[in-house]
Amino acid sequence: MGQAGCKGLYQSLFDYKTEKYVIAKNKKVGLLYRLLQVSILTYLVVWVFLVKKCYQDTDTSLQSSIITKVKGVTFTNTSELGERLWDVADYVIPPQGENVFFVITNLVVTPNQRQETCAESASVPDALCYEDSDCPPGEPVAAGNGVRTGRCLREGSAQKGTCEIFAWCPVETRSRPTKPLLGEAKDFTVYIKNFIRFPKFNFSKTNVLDTTDRTFLKSCKFSPENPYCPIFRLGSVVSWTGSNFQEIAVQGGVIGIQIEWDCDLDKAPSECYPRYYFNRLDNRFSGNSISSGYNFRFAKYYRDAAGVEFRTLFKAYGIRFDVMVNGKAGKFNIIPTIINVGSGVALMGVGSFFCDLVLIYFIKKSHFYRDKKYEEVRSGHQGNGKVNVEQLQSLQTMEA
Amino acid sequence: MGQAGCKGLYQSLFDYKTEKYVIAKNKKVGLLYRLLQVSILTYLVVWVFLVKKCYQDTDTSLQSSIITKVKGVTFTNTSELGERLWDVADYVIPPQGENVFFVITNLVVTPNQRQETCAESASVPDALCYEDSDCPPGEPVAAGNGVRTGRCLREGSAQKGTCEIFAWCPVETRSRPTKPLLGEAKDFTVYIKNFIRFPKFNFSKTNVLDTTDRTFLKSCKFSPENPYCPIFRLGSVVSWTGSNFQEIAVQGGVIGIQIEWDCDLDKAPSECYPRYYFNRLDNRFSGNSISSGYNFRFAKYYRDAAGVEFRTLFKAYGIRFDVMVNGKAGKFNIIPTIINVGSGVALMGVGSFFCDLVLIYFIKKSHFYRDKKYEEVRSGHQGNGKVNVEQLQSLQTMEA
Amino acid sequence: MGQAGCKGLYQSLFDYKTEKYVIAKNKKVGLLYRLLQVSILTYLVVWVFLVKKCYQDTDTSLQSSIITKVKGVTFTNTSELGERLWDVADYVIPPQGENVFFVITNLVVTPNQRQETCAESASVPDALCYEDSDCPPGEPVAAGNGVRTGRCLREGSAQKGTCEIFAWCPVETRSRPTKPLLGEAKDFTVYIKNFIRFPKFNFSKTNVLDTTDRTFLKSCKFSPENPYCPIFRLGSVVSWTGSNFQEIAVQGGVIGIQIEWDCDLDKAPSECYPRYYFNRLDNRFSGNSISSGYNFRFAKYYRDAAGVEFRTLFKAYGIRFDVMVNGKAGKFNIIPTIINVGSGVALMGVGSFFCDLVLIYFIKKSHFYRDKKYEEVRSGHQGNGKVNVEQLQSLQTMEA
Repeated sequence: MGQAGCKGLYQSLFDYKTEKYVIAKNKKVGLLYRLLQVSILTYLVVWVFLVKKCYQDTDTSLQSSIITKVKGVTFTNTSELGERLWDVADYVIPPQGENVFFVITNLVVTPNQRQETCAESASVPDALCYEDSDCPPGEPVAAGNGVRTGRCLREGSAQKGTCEIFAWCPVETRSRPTKPLLGEAKDFTVYIKNFIRFPKFNFSKTNVLDTTDRTFLKSCKFSPENPYCPIFRLGSVVSWTGSNFQEIAVQGGVIGIQIEWDCDLDKAPSECYPRYYFNRLDNRFSGNSISSGYNFRFAKYYRDAAGVEFRTLFKAYGIRFDVMVNGKAGKFNIIPTIINVGSGVALMGVGSFFCDLVLIYFIKKSHFYRDKKYEEVRSGHQGNGKVNVEQLQSLQTMEA
Repeated sequence: MGQAGCKGLYQSLFDYKTEKYVIAKNKKVGLLYRLLQVSILTYLVVWVFLVKKCYQDTDTSLQSSIITKVKGVTFTNTSELGERLWDVADYVIPPQGENVFFVITNLVVTPNQRQETCAESASVPDALCYEDSDCPPGEPVAAGNGVRTGRCLREGSAQKGTCEIFAWCPVETRSRPTKPLLGEAKDFTVYIKNFIRFPKFNFSKTNVLDTTDRTFLKSCKFSPENPYCPIFRLGSVVSWTGSNFQEIAVQGGVIGIQIEWDCDLDKAPSECYPRYYFNRLDNRFSGNSISSGYNFRFAKYYRDAAGVEFRTLFKAYGIRFDVMVNGKAGKFNIIPTIINVGSGVALMGVGSFFCDLVLIYFIKKSHFYRDKKYEEVRSGHQGNGKVNVEQLQSLQTMEA
Repeated sequence: MGQAGCKGLYQSLFDYKTEKYVIAKNKKVGLLYRLLQVSILTYLVVWVFLVKKCYQDTDTSLQSSIITKVKGVTFTNTSELGERLWDVADYVIPPQGENVFFVITNLVVTPNQRQETCAESASVPDALCYEDSDCPPGEPVAAGNGVRTGRCLREGSAQKGTCEIFAWCPVETRSRPTKPLLGEAKDFTVYIKNFIRFPKFNFSKTNVLDTTDRTFLKSCKFSPENPYCPIFRLGSVVSWTGSNFQEIAVQGGVIGIQIEWDCDLDKAPSECYPRYYFNRLDNRFSGNSISSGYNFRFAKYYRDAAGVEFRTLFKAYGIRFDVMVNGKAGKFNIIPTIINVGSGVALMGVGSFFCDLVLIYFIKKSHFYRDKKYEEVRSGHQGNGKVNVEQLQSLQTMEA
């Protein structure tokens, strides 16, 4: 080893260097180490490989497309609207059948609004007035419906009135019906068609059972017992979220329908099927009335014979459904397998580290083991002392 | 090391403890180890660093904004609608130019519907009747258009008829045209403007070529040869998904336009450009007619001179385009670099582990190497002999 | 060790094998190693545990629901539209209060369009003509409004004219107002209600302060000083993105409102609150006029007394708001804690690896240490000599 020529380098290139171990005949630490080894192995096999399936390459960048189609009609008879039949084109907004859709269940209708002047609603605090000077002309009413004209309208001999405004008149004054107009919406059904694709594995699937029985989709309803039929009764969906349909129908709400795909592509494609979860997504638990429920206003615009525009204002309460899809697919791949086995072996080193600590610091004979484990060498003595015996030996080896 | 005073501790604090190795002059295992080392290094350099770019800090939480604008007009002449020109405001739903938009290609129009009574469509199985008692009044027709009035309408002397219903009358009876009404939609173009931002690196980019040539965007069309022009001909997009435009135009469909940004911010910003992928997202391969195609119903509402509401119902078939953006950006960062180098070195340990197994169990002289690798110590004998009994014993074993 | 019976195996099963170390009394390398150890420990504690909180199990698959509600009215008086009041149903598209909504700030109105023939707009290059043969009948005008009828319309004695087209006539000719029609939109407010749920931890929260003070939400405005009030003034939102409201109101734009939840569920639920970020999402920095701003066309359809359809075409400029939610929650979990401690310990091995390199290659006495660290064994000598020389040597060392 005194020379380090090319040949020596070449020879030593294929020498295998392996760590030297000291066998400590200590049953306690030995047992501890075996326990740690077994724990790590168990963790590796059970958690990393069986539960988390870390031997698989995964794809979570799901391509998904949702088509929804609501079905159902209902008949109402109110003093405002008369006899009226509601079909899908009337009560679903927007009509396109996207992943977010809204079903009207309750309505406040203000028909025949025109651009003119009228009294502001008395329920708007900023509109109250005693005299005309309380209504500076041209200024909009805060949280109100129009701009002030400058007059204060008082009924009869009342002291207090509301400002006259220029607005879509008459303004909305009715309050929310306490009984939902379209309470029968609980029997409407929605057909949710979901197509997914995992681009990494070029794997496509749909949530509709691949059947040749054409009547299946015409007659089936989704239920925990019948999970392959993606036709949902609205009332059932609401009840699965733990909500009451009549309550949500009156003041509106948001319901999340989650479709989860967890596909193991090492198994048959038929084992990859969706799971459905239903959640209420607006905070109904809050007592704060301003932050519960769901409603919005929209209008239908018309022209009369003279060409003047008028509109019907709707304040719609109802249920918004958000269909959300997420998923992941996994398939065996050698690289994550190696990496996970490797990190498992590396974890063994942690076990050794811990046992070493015990062995050389915490047991009775730790001194002895410490001396055995650590071999002290001092380069300073090399020249001084007689002969470093080991070097002598290696010298002898050379000479031999 | 017999004393463990403060000074000794201080001195030993800066002693460097290094593992003692046994050099096994075994060419086979040595070669095996070198092979493993080279494999791990290759994997580390090629896969981890060059392919996966693990030396970079990555940002996948892309902020993205999509603006779409369809252009094109087409002229139709049908018996129902007469001569009619279709422009963007007519055939794009919704009009806002968001990332999901729908282009009407085929229509079933049912004009002048009013709230009154008429016969249910004969194509609804639940509506068939022989006598009035088959039509319980007030009950909606399953999968039908209205609620029964209680009368059974039979034409002439026919035995079988359909229930009279209260509904938007007349009900939709026409079936889907077999030739798409707006077949010329294949020549429409859509301009997709995509702005992205990686918040972690504060890097913004758009998919529109930054050019001073104002005519470029007015005249160009996207093609694999011209990827910097985000103006797409609908017919080309459909053909790139492998679909036939006439077929999708008749029964509708969903097409995904995926924009993928994979930016290496260590390079010039101009190297960060989008890639486009086109996919058919409804399952056209299914033979099941109920689950293929895409259509929805919407209505336009009017009032006649007397103020009575009537509507035109449209059953629209067409192509829904879902523009999806995903991306990631990476930039050199010292922390992931260190971690990945570290885990690579740790992986070397796995190589040693494997070679050790071979060395001490599977080769011919494994016994010899096992004895060399493992040095047995027994604390019980320490005080007794001058000679370390274990080493003596192994010597005796040799001599025996 | 010559025998390997069952008993021996059982005994050696609980022997603890620990690596043998050589203590190199080299202060420099020792110091280097300690420095590396301290660095790794610091990195582990500060970065991995305190900053990245890797001892926590995290959930990033947030369920989120957004409800938005715009409030405000404004009055305009133009020659085209006359006196007109604009309320939410007029200027918000779509009306449903989803996470993406558009507020009209500027308009080009083309009223009373009917399906008939008229001259194409002179601003469409493809429509210019000198004689009838320049206008092949039935061919659509590129980037124009209709299909050519075959006639070239020239005003008076002008040489040049535009083709007559069949279209929605009259065609849109007015250009964008330079002063925004609804400039007062800056005082509109939007109430953003965000409900989130982390399914893994079954933790729900809303961005609305849970207060019993009912007037709080009626009067408050969001500001950096008042982050618990989710009511935003549009003008402020625009200014927080660094944009000018009048400029964005004239030509339109897209603004992203990002809500970020970063929840440490080991702390009190009240410590989990949203942070808001505002960004301009269309590339206003581009000088390219075709790619800046945001506008789209939509129409309102009417019928006259004779039942003929006509429409009013709107080209709407305005601000699209995209509300985006992302977040993550973490909670202490033993498994990621162990894994991260483990990988930290494994990282120590990298420190040893590096110091070993220094010790046996780069320092002056590296030769000496290399000989100490590596113990050469050669199985070839085993059979020859009676005594293994190395063992003899170690025996001599003992006796000395």
